[in-house]
Parts: sequence; structure tokens; C-alpha cells
Amino acid sequence: MVDQPLWEQIGSSFVQHYYQLFDSDRSQLGTIYIDESCLTWEGQQFQGKKAIVGKLNSLPFPKIVHSITVQDHQPTPDCNILSMVVGQLKKFNRNIWEPKEEQSILDSRSGACVKQKKRAPQYNFGCRLA
Amino acid sequence: MVDQPLWEQIGSSFVQHYYQLFDSDRSQLGTIYIDESCLTWEGQQFQGKKAIVGKLNSLPFPKIVHSITVQDHQPTPDCNILSMVVGQLKKFNRNIWEPKEEQSILDSRSGACVKQKKRAPQYNFGCRLA
Repeated sequence: MVDQPLWEQIGSSFVQHYYQLFDSDRSQLGTIYIDESCLTWEGQQFQGKKAIVGKLNSLPFPKIVHSITVQDHQPTPDCNILSMVVGQLKKFNRNIWEPKEEQSILDSRSGACVKQKKRAPQYNFGCRLA
Repeated sequence: MVDQPLWEQIGSSFVQHYYQLFDSDRSQLGTIYIDESCLTWEGQQFQGKKAIVGKLNSLPFPKIVHSITVQDHQPTPDCNILSMVVGQLKKFNRNIWEPKEEQSILDSRSGACVKQKKRAPQYNFGCRLA
């Protein structure tokens, strides 16, 4: 851990904290966002803590489990942190893991998530033969 | 197009230009990056125009075709543009389309790509049953 650049340490700590909160008690996710935060969920845009937490709490599955496969972190030009997460999720009552990818910009001073995008690739890649 | 926010217009123009260049003449991609640019390619990091263009030109497939499925753009806190692209690519001599996801931060003044991450999800999601 000590050999990692600071943005890697902050980024991976954020990822661990965020998905633990998402999987255990989604109503607590308000601590992650601020009023300037933006979320794009499958192309649909939400701005501000209230709208984002409202969306996340209105999801039709009461319980979800994330499994993170890979994560990449880079510092942004204004010294925040850009994170990409690729993994899988399992919804309550469904016995399959679905692919998921997300990207976030973290404010390095407050630790808040100021920009976030979520996509479920299986709905977007489709299956295409040449 | 005129009803789109400015960051959507800049972001989608960048995506069109970038993948057209990538597919037609990869050696021209040096016009996209600057010396401050960073690229994370499947977890491997490259910094600066020379290192990034060197990596892209050393790829073992001479020709590639991208097909963009969805793209999302958001302004960043420092007025640059954060883009997420999900799509498919077909390598020369292979008759299948493979899923691909990329994220970029564009400098809104110069149009340069200052941060970029590329992942091929099929290698990272795997196939997992509960």
C-alpha cells in the first residue's frame, strides 16, 4: 500500500467504501455525494445529492452484491482523481452475475464523488457478428 | 445538435474524430495527445505524447475497426470534458466484434486528450455463476 501513489490509495479506498455502502445500506450513499455531483445512469442524468440518492434508492432490487474485478485510478489536471471500475453485480433473487462498469471523479479534498457514470455493458455491447 | 449542451457537442465530435483517425491511420494520433497526457492500457501506464503514440503504433494488429454503441459526456469541475465510450472493435483478419470500453478527459481549450483509459471487458468480466 505504501508504494502506491497517493491517488491510487485514495481511489482504491473510495471504491472499497462506496461498494460496501452500496451493498449493505444504499440509504447511506448521501454521505458520498454533494450538491454539485452529477450522475449519468444508462444515459439518464441526475444532478445533486438529493436527485442521485433518490435514484439509487428507487432501484427495483432491494439488495445487490458487487464484485470488483479491476480498477484504474489517475490524477486529473485539477488534482482530483479519475477512477474506472469494471466488475460484476448480482441482484437479489437472481442467481447470475451481470457485468458492470462505472467511472467516477473524486474531489481529493472532500473525498466526495463529483462525477459518476454507470453502464451495464451487456445491454450496450449486444452480440454482433461481422 | 444545436439543442445539445456544449460539452456534448465537443465530446461527440472528439469521439468521431478520434476513432476515425484510429481506424484509418493510427500514426496520426499524435495530434490528439500532449506531453501531459496519460494513458492506462489494461492497467499499464504511459505518460506523454511520445510514449502513448509509441504504444498505439506498436499494437500487433495493423488494422482495426471501431463501432461505437453509446457515449456519455459530462463537464468536469475544472471545465474540461469527461467522456465514456462503450462499443465494439474488430481486428484485422478476425471476423468477430469484441467489446471495448474507454474513458477520456478532454482539455476543452486545446481539444487534447489529457487522460485516457482503455479496457477490453471480455478479459475482465469473465463468466461467473453464483
